[in-house]
Amino acid sequence: MLGNFSYKNATKLYFGEDSLKYLSDELPKYGKNVVLIYGGGSIKKNGIYDEVIKILKQNGKNVAEDSGVMPNPTADKLREGVKIAREHNADLLLAVGGGSCCDYAKAVSVSVNCDEDPWDKYFIRFDEPDCQIVPVGCVLTMAGTGSEMNGGSVITNSETKQKIGHVFGEEVMPKFSILNPKFTMSLPKYQMVAGIYDIFNHICEQYFSGEDDNVSDDIAEALMKSVVRNSLVAVKDPEDYEARSNIMWAATWALNTLISRGKTTDWMVHMLGQAVGGFTNATHGMTLAAVSLPYYCHIMPYGVKKFRQFAVNVWGVDPAGKTDTEVANEGLYALENWMKQIGVSLNITELGADKDMIKDIAREVEILSGGYKTLSKAEIEQILLESL
Amino acid sequence: MLGNFSYKNATKLYFGEDSLKYLSDELPKYGKNVVLIYGGGSIKKNGIYDEVIKILKQNGKNVAEDSGVMPNPTADKLREGVKIAREHNADLLLAVGGGSCCDYAKAVSVSVNCDEDPWDKYFIRFDEPDCQIVPVGCVLTMAGTGSEMNGGSVITNSETKQKIGHVFGEEVMPKFSILNPKFTMSLPKYQMVAGIYDIFNHICEQYFSGEDDNVSDDIAEALMKSVVRNSLVAVKDPEDYEARSNIMWAATWALNTLISRGKTTDWMVHMLGQAVGGFTNATHGMTLAAVSLPYYCHIMPYGVKKFRQFAVNVWGVDPAGKTDTEVANEGLYALENWMKQIGVSLNITELGADKDMIKDIAREVEILSGGYKTLSKAEIEQILLESL
Repeated sequence: MLGNFSYKNATKLYFGEDSLKYLSDELPKYGKNVVLIYGGGSIKKNGIYDEVIKILKQNGKNVAEDSGVMPNPTADKLREGVKIAREHNADLLLAVGGGSCCDYAKAVSVSVNCDEDPWDKYFIRFDEPDCQIVPVGCVLTMAGTGSEMNGGSVITNSETKQKIGHVFGEEVMPKFSILNPKFTMSLPKYQMVAGIYDIFNHICEQYFSGEDDNVSDDIAEALMKSVVRNSLVAVKDPEDYEARSNIMWAATWALNTLISRGKTTDWMVHMLGQAVGGFTNATHGMTLAAVSLPYYCHIMPYGVKKFRQFAVNVWGVDPAGKTDTEVANEGLYALENWMKQIGVSLNITELGADKDMIKDIAREVEILSGGYKTLSKAEIEQILLESL
Repeated sequence: MLGNFSYKNATKLYFGEDSLKYLSDELPKYGKNVVLIYGGGSIKKNGIYDEVIKILKQNGKNVAEDSGVMPNPTADKLREGVKIAREHNADLLLAVGGGSCCDYAKAVSVSVNCDEDPWDKYFIRFDEPDCQIVPVGCVLTMAGTGSEMNGGSVITNSETKQKIGHVFGEEVMPKFSILNPKFTMSLPKYQMVAGIYDIFNHICEQYFSGEDDNVSDDIAEALMKSVVRNSLVAVKDPEDYEARSNIMWAATWALNTLISRGKTTDWMVHMLGQAVGGFTNATHGMTLAAVSLPYYCHIMPYGVKKFRQFAVNVWGVDPAGKTDTEVANEGLYALENWMKQIGVSLNITELGADKDMIKDIAREVEILSGGYKTLSKAEIEQILLESL
């Protein structure tokens, strides 16, 4: 049954090859002071930085730069970003990059006008913002996190090795996001593939929960099929615009709250993967991939009906003459086969984890109860060991 | 290929059995003067009127009533509604009813502060609103039109027998909509079934256009499967909350602009059906149903690949050993079979049309070119004759 819920997502999206020009439609809505947030400087190599700066100048903006946002943005970097935004009296935070830059911009946006330490406030105590939020806009250069149209923000504390996400409400979602599939083509293949698995897993996290027959799960299956079909094209030809544009658009809808409406969700693969990421600093999507199969094989018996549905509806497994468990297993084989085809990490060893870390990683895994089985700490250790 | 597009839909939705209580969260955002818009008074019989009035009074609102909105709201009624809203100095138009009430409220909202005649301005000249728009909120009692989360408004001129829709932009979309599946259970079965076909056809209109392999069509197929599956439950047991809630939620996403992003669309079934409606005043969804099969059989040869995909992905037709046309035809048979199962009109004769009207109806059909074949007037007459 579709449970009770509310839904609002007011992010304005501009999608397509010409989408950057619409930045000029948005900028006049905000004050003069813009903080331009970006990562390691790849946007300087591929020309996006120059294009954005040109449009900002044409619109008479006073720009401060906050660069060096790392793939797993740290609490220390967040504190630095808050300082820059305060000193610049920011009217708009413009993130140009992937999900890390968007996530980071949102964390800065809720902290500029708050006195407390942002890590403690939002990622330890999970407070809601109670100070004025600085608007965020995104120019997206990587498809994956969905951060361009949601309130999520994941920050890593490199001292305590904690990687923690806070899903803020609609008031923290970007005011606008610019999605140009061509920008995603400048990424290395490793990052593209990690992003693709991140998308797919976002859908799985919302799908593998509950026994009901609702339209959210129908849409989830549609998105999964689209991601699988287009990913196989994109790994062969990363320049295929059709494939890259479908992947980019599916990514947005995979995690902008739509497909979780009215149903329970799981998110244990993210809890496991983020804990691995906290210790290894590995690419987010790869950490999810590396723990997924051991996790899903472990919980499948507790949600066999849904795993059977996944096999039939997403992977086209023919269920005739087979038990539910046999069909469900064929679905997981199909998932594994696809993961091998696109080339994601299938173990955490290659991401820098080893047996000695398992107890420490397991300690940092937050245990959620929306999935088909609430895991014990022993089961988490077991799954992490099987992920090595 | 996903074409270039923008997307924004800021309507806040409250969904579920308890959703009406959230009206109290929304009302304080608007001024004191509320015009309560409703239809023939069924909301007085089922208690919804009393509940809404109670919440309005609790929030200290000064309420004027604009009742008697008909299933096909007329230009004359629209002029009357504009007068009521002006006299009341309306701060909020609260529509309580089905798509007709929401459509009508939107047409009033863009006309209150404009001097020109609203029919001429918006439904003949298709002007965009250039005067201040009065905010609209909806309490939905029927699933079908999607009007609760889009900018569409269909108005009928009973003198000229023209039924014309204007799709306004995001600024005209309702600010909030309250969706309680239980409210839809008070409808007669005829209206429920007409709404279900309206939903399905909204999806078809966006799906049967273009040859590309994009995620919008994947989502469209998911919504169609959900509507079919849940409609078969709902016609057997209209009190089945799970079915009615899935139908209501699918209706919203069938026509809130998502599944048309980046692709061409058709809308000829609506052009045909609306012309029939202008002459017969028949229920909207039934007019669509009654012209659909003759139309789709006519255009199928020009879009056989998509009709084949429809057959396989929506209806589960096994394509093995069959030509594309054979598979496509099996999909149309499956559609017809489902239409019979749920009990929609399969001809326009039972809706009050006859052979003598065909030329007049055909003259009012607007010819669009987004589908697989741009029809001639002769073809339109032919399809209408086959619909008798």
